[in-house]
Amino acid sequence: MKAVVFDNGLKLDTNYPKPVPQKGEALIKVVMAGICNTDYEITKGYMGYKGILGHEFVGVVEEINGEDKSLLGKRVVAEISYGCDKDDCEWCAQKNYRHCPERHTLGIWKKDGCFAEYMTMPLNVLFEVPDNVTNEQAVFVEPLAAACEISEQLHIEPMKRVLVLGDGKLGLTTALTLHAQNLDVILVGKHQNKLEIASKQGVKTELLENFKIEKKYDVVVEATGTASGFETSMALTKPRGVLVLKSTVATGKELNLAPIVIDEITVLGSRCGQFPPALRLLRNNRIDFTPFISGVYSIDNAIEAFEANKQKDTIKILIRM
Amino acid sequence: MKAVVFDNGLKLDTNYPKPVPQKGEALIKVVMAGICNTDYEITKGYMGYKGILGHEFVGVVEEINGEDKSLLGKRVVAEISYGCDKDDCEWCAQKNYRHCPERHTLGIWKKDGCFAEYMTMPLNVLFEVPDNVTNEQAVFVEPLAAACEISEQLHIEPMKRVLVLGDGKLGLTTALTLHAQNLDVILVGKHQNKLEIASKQGVKTELLENFKIEKKYDVVVEATGTASGFETSMALTKPRGVLVLKSTVATGKELNLAPIVIDEITVLGSRCGQFPPALRLLRNNRIDFTPFISGVYSIDNAIEAFEANKQKDTIKILIRM
Repeated sequence: MKAVVFDNGLKLDTNYPKPVPQKGEALIKVVMAGICNTDYEITKGYMGYKGILGHEFVGVVEEINGEDKSLLGKRVVAEISYGCDKDDCEWCAQKNYRHCPERHTLGIWKKDGCFAEYMTMPLNVLFEVPDNVTNEQAVFVEPLAAACEISEQLHIEPMKRVLVLGDGKLGLTTALTLHAQNLDVILVGKHQNKLEIASKQGVKTELLENFKIEKKYDVVVEATGTASGFETSMALTKPRGVLVLKSTVATGKELNLAPIVIDEITVLGSRCGQFPPALRLLRNNRIDFTPFISGVYSIDNAIEAFEANKQKDTIKILIRM
Repeated sequence: MKAVVFDNGLKLDTNYPKPVPQKGEALIKVVMAGICNTDYEITKGYMGYKGILGHEFVGVVEEINGEDKSLLGKRVVAEISYGCDKDDCEWCAQKNYRHCPERHTLGIWKKDGCFAEYMTMPLNVLFEVPDNVTNEQAVFVEPLAAACEISEQLHIEPMKRVLVLGDGKLGLTTALTLHAQNLDVILVGKHQNKLEIASKQGVKTELLENFKIEKKYDVVVEATGTASGFETSMALTKPRGVLVLKSTVATGKELNLAPIVIDEITVLGSRCGQFPPALRLLRNNRIDFTPFISGVYSIDNAIEAFEANKQKDTIKILIRM
């Protein structure tokens, strides 16, 4: 089968072995996938991962190795981590597979990803896509779930002031998600055209160059992935407020953490999320991801798709299998 | 009066003007004071502070400028920050003066400190010392309140595993305080003699060199004040656990914050605390600070006291006025 493989270099392999579902797994024919910045980071060495890339997808179940065949033929998405499922694993007991020490993560850690014609995943991380959700929307469920994760970790009271810093796909998705939960959100970024994607869906936005940096936000979501964005986020967070750290990229610069102590800020690391709340937002048409789509490429042109993903104006690049 | 003043250099001024209490303030004759690492940091430039140093003390109220004379002649301690007390200040309304944007902080920010024969402080931050608490114990109330602050910010459930990293005065005080609240605490440090101060009062302790670094602690308190201590703390914090950052010193090194996101760690900045819970611990003899005292110096020998504070084996140096 065709597969986009990273092994030091990035290549399209047209003869990759089709995977075989193990006990409890489904074989999924991938329909559409999305390129995430994590995929790009992996091509620069992140996690030391080698194999098929990709973890954002929508597909159709073609085969099930297990008793319960209810998802056969269904359109599905999958949470990207699965765990050991041993009786004494507290994380697996909570379905919080992403923290299981023996986890596998699709296209990131010990598990071939979804940029391929076929993939397998355990049945217990699959979710059926509601009929009224198109493939072009469903393919966004994974980053959308990551944005919903903030609400899983933190109770944001309705009178609190929330600021999202960064207007890339992560910042846009987070701002739209918090807005969809009726919170008071402002999105601050550097690109008028990107900010408009959020403002057209009702989110307050502001260009960073016009924005007054004041310690007055109860919750600040750092979505720039840069050290300077982290510092700006600290300068925007009210004393005793929460700075949500959503990106793994902000590394390797001298950081002065004293403001965290002086202002008693809580820095909350936030990663992937569970899918049901994200699917609920999609089913109820709370967010339209159409304006995120900067291009749709055939898997035959996957290398070109990765190049397009690097462009400054790009938001989301999709791959059709 | 005699006063220990920092103005680029550190000096003992024997002719410093005695302060005059303003409306709502008390004049306090200082009896005993303690040197904190923050004082030492200030002599290296921290906060750009110039003036009388010191913020840990016990003293006697000699004069009150105000109606309520109830504290006259009483032995007192003082919370170190006071605010604007304006009607529309949310922080002052909560008595959370340390976050008031117009705050003054004793010996740290816009307010002469306590290493002097006399000082003034507003009546609303003074607390009477219970009769059964000696001066040598009462002088520890400020760092003890800072340790109690963790419980103000975070609910630590009794089954959670708590680790304090660092056996300096901050780590010792924090470990003893959490232990005094019946929590399951282990203190990990590099100095057997310091660890014994905690172990003799019932705290489990372990030398870092013998200690297995595993991500299994629900709450880790970083009390080393070093960047490497911060990294070790991240490596000890369980996924979704809390890393309490107690020191402003850990700065200026390249830090990789990715573990915070991957393990969804909460980093909780924690500073000063309110005094009533700390006074309660002292009144009930829950912690004995006697073994912390490495030396007691007359204010006449304050420069020598600061030198002694720098020594590796020193825990707490006190100054008697």
